[in-house]
Amino acid sequence: MSNSCAGKLAMAINQQRLVDSLEQLARFGATADGGVNRQALSVLDLQARRWLIGQAESLGCSVFTDDSANLFFRRPGTSDLPPVVTGSHTDTQPSGGKYDGCLGVMAGLECIAALNDAGITTLRPVEVAVWMNEEGSRFSPGAMGSSAFVYPERLSHYLQATDADQVTLQQALTDHHQAFPGLPHRAPIPMSAFLELHIEQGPVLEKAGISLGAVTGIQGVRWYQVICEGSAAHAGTTPMHLRRDAMSLAMTATEQLRQLGDALAGSELRITFGRWQVEPNAINTIPARVTFSVDFRHADPTVLEAFDQQLKECLPDYCQATAGFIHPPVQFPEAIVSTVTAACQALNQPFIPLRSGAFHDAMYLAAHCPTGMIFVPSRDGISHNPAEFTEPADLTAGTRVLAWCLAELANQSETPEIL
Amino acid sequence: MSNSCAGKLAMAINQQRLVDSLEQLARFGATADGGVNRQALSVLDLQARRWLIGQAESLGCSVFTDDSANLFFRRPGTSDLPPVVTGSHTDTQPSGGKYDGCLGVMAGLECIAALNDAGITTLRPVEVAVWMNEEGSRFSPGAMGSSAFVYPERLSHYLQATDADQVTLQQALTDHHQAFPGLPHRAPIPMSAFLELHIEQGPVLEKAGISLGAVTGIQGVRWYQVICEGSAAHAGTTPMHLRRDAMSLAMTATEQLRQLGDALAGSELRITFGRWQVEPNAINTIPARVTFSVDFRHADPTVLEAFDQQLKECLPDYCQATAGFIHPPVQFPEAIVSTVTAACQALNQPFIPLRSGAFHDAMYLAAHCPTGMIFVPSRDGISHNPAEFTEPADLTAGTRVLAWCLAELANQSETPEIL
Repeated sequence: MSNSCAGKLAMAINQQRLVDSLEQLARFGATADGGVNRQALSVLDLQARRWLIGQAESLGCSVFTDDSANLFFRRPGTSDLPPVVTGSHTDTQPSGGKYDGCLGVMAGLECIAALNDAGITTLRPVEVAVWMNEEGSRFSPGAMGSSAFVYPERLSHYLQATDADQVTLQQALTDHHQAFPGLPHRAPIPMSAFLELHIEQGPVLEKAGISLGAVTGIQGVRWYQVICEGSAAHAGTTPMHLRRDAMSLAMTATEQLRQLGDALAGSELRITFGRWQVEPNAINTIPARVTFSVDFRHADPTVLEAFDQQLKECLPDYCQATAGFIHPPVQFPEAIVSTVTAACQALNQPFIPLRSGAFHDAMYLAAHCPTGMIFVPSRDGISHNPAEFTEPADLTAGTRVLAWCLAELANQSETPEIL
Repeated sequence: MSNSCAGKLAMAINQQRLVDSLEQLARFGATADGGVNRQALSVLDLQARRWLIGQAESLGCSVFTDDSANLFFRRPGTSDLPPVVTGSHTDTQPSGGKYDGCLGVMAGLECIAALNDAGITTLRPVEVAVWMNEEGSRFSPGAMGSSAFVYPERLSHYLQATDADQVTLQQALTDHHQAFPGLPHRAPIPMSAFLELHIEQGPVLEKAGISLGAVTGIQGVRWYQVICEGSAAHAGTTPMHLRRDAMSLAMTATEQLRQLGDALAGSELRITFGRWQVEPNAINTIPARVTFSVDFRHADPTVLEAFDQQLKECLPDYCQATAGFIHPPVQFPEAIVSTVTAACQALNQPFIPLRSGAFHDAMYLAAHCPTGMIFVPSRDGISHNPAEFTEPADLTAGTRVLAWCLAELANQSETPEIL
């Protein structure tokens, strides 16, 4: 019975309304090159939030905020059981696009509009969450709102974070609460599930010609900084066998790290050496010191730990590694992933299981309630860029799968367990 | 007969006087770390030149300058034949030492002092030249004085060169000529030979445990800039086989360029990738563009030309090379090199033939007259550094060989030919 209700809801998703709503949100911070620059809790973001709140209220939702300026748009259920929640974020990179984060929020509101249109009531409330500062481009680190929702003790550490103009997060939160003085604050509540629709930000779905990814989890990450110590010497006077060239050491190091990654991860390998500093960086001087970054990601914690353990052994002499940011992998519970795949099957939509390589608010929510994600393709794999684009048909396919899942989950009286 | 005169002169070299004179010159621009910062034609350099002129005059020399502020200290011969000339430069790198360039000048004055002490007259005049702005650290390019001496038409191109404070070379030359208003200007004259004593600035003599290098020539050089175009993408979301990582391209390019160099130059290979720029240079973004420099040196012009011809073929797709500074190799004439080796043998000094990997004023003088160089060891191969050091015994050995050669060449009525 619930399946037919879910299918009815999916069919009530209105592609034109969805696309229009994304375009309307994109006006706040629109840039001349077709992109969006909307920093968390900036004047433009407050304008966008005012518009979003109006949209939610016009759909009959109650609106709440919390100490971290997350927003929650709630459509009541027939019971007061913990809600099923969807959503994402509306802040963007400085040179961002219209879809990253925004799709998850606008698709959530579209689902609520479709619930209304189809006259569907659900057992559980359905909520759309707007998480604060996911990009981390105004205040560091990213995913502040979702992580402080799940780990409220973190907020006090974030309050003194400053933006480029030395405005603190504390001040920005005050600005937000003053902009919306009537908005009720709500403490973190239990949720029966969190499901985030997001663009893939990678090329896999597009290359496969498939519109939907059933996300099984989020890779864990290790960041290292490696310093290779050579010996500066004259490019013209120093024979090759008497050199200790820091760049040659670094190339050997990256080759060996790549081999280590291959041995541990095989076709799942994701290793990147993205940031480089060469000293003294002169044409006719042999490099004395090279510093480079390692970004290694994998879904299996034992692989990440093996990388940690073997990394130092595989570096050449005169090279040293220091660990930076780390995050363990997240595995979404089978009950949520199978709901997403059931939705795709019910809606006759081809899909592939996919692991998220990027971080998302769902990474933190996964510690709070059963969590999952749905991906739709990114044209050319491009994101964080004005050229970010997803075909309207793919936006709709993703929103329909989301709607199907929300209806399904909102009518379950039992909450799936977090594995 | 001339050999016994040359031997007598060599024995008149006074190690203590030589070492003291280098220390005295090093006072002008002395830095707290024991090094020297004396930029070409700066106030400190003018003070040093005033002291040098006084030294030369007290040795009975006539002093001349020219349009490029080169200085010439002349001890007359019994004839007016073209002089035998030695010398080098007295400007330093910003973080320079006491020996680079200065040794060649002070050893020249020591030879004149020894000629006086030994009561030796020579057929030809003996001159000590001080070439302006060899280092190129105040005004670019380097070796301005010697190149403008040999190619006077170049001076007009150099005049508008500016230092970091936007002072032009033209102004600096005016300052120099106003500081020494009585100094006679002399147009470039024929020279029978030019012989430059210099520190090796490399590790070869020290590693060999030998005090003297008979320099056979100066390597030619090719500078290239290579740009590798990758595609920026997310480090977490982009599978390895879908990446075009500009740093991976650059590593392949350097490996193939190194192999090309090996094939062309074998054990004589000198190839350096010293300057690197990575964009966007972010930990979690695959490098989109890498720019690096190539410094390739060799003594054989056919090897340099083969490198030019084969370079582009051995670059991977998406990599492009642009040529920068080039200079052909210089081969010193056999008559000069054999004079140096004869001096070493007559003075019972072990020596090795050596090619200069660095540029020197002798590189330009070689187009003007028969030219050669004598090298003495650099401790740890270090130069352009306050730690620059050569043992007093090695300074003396080099100066004795220089003195022997000057006496020998100054008593030859025939000028050796430039090969």
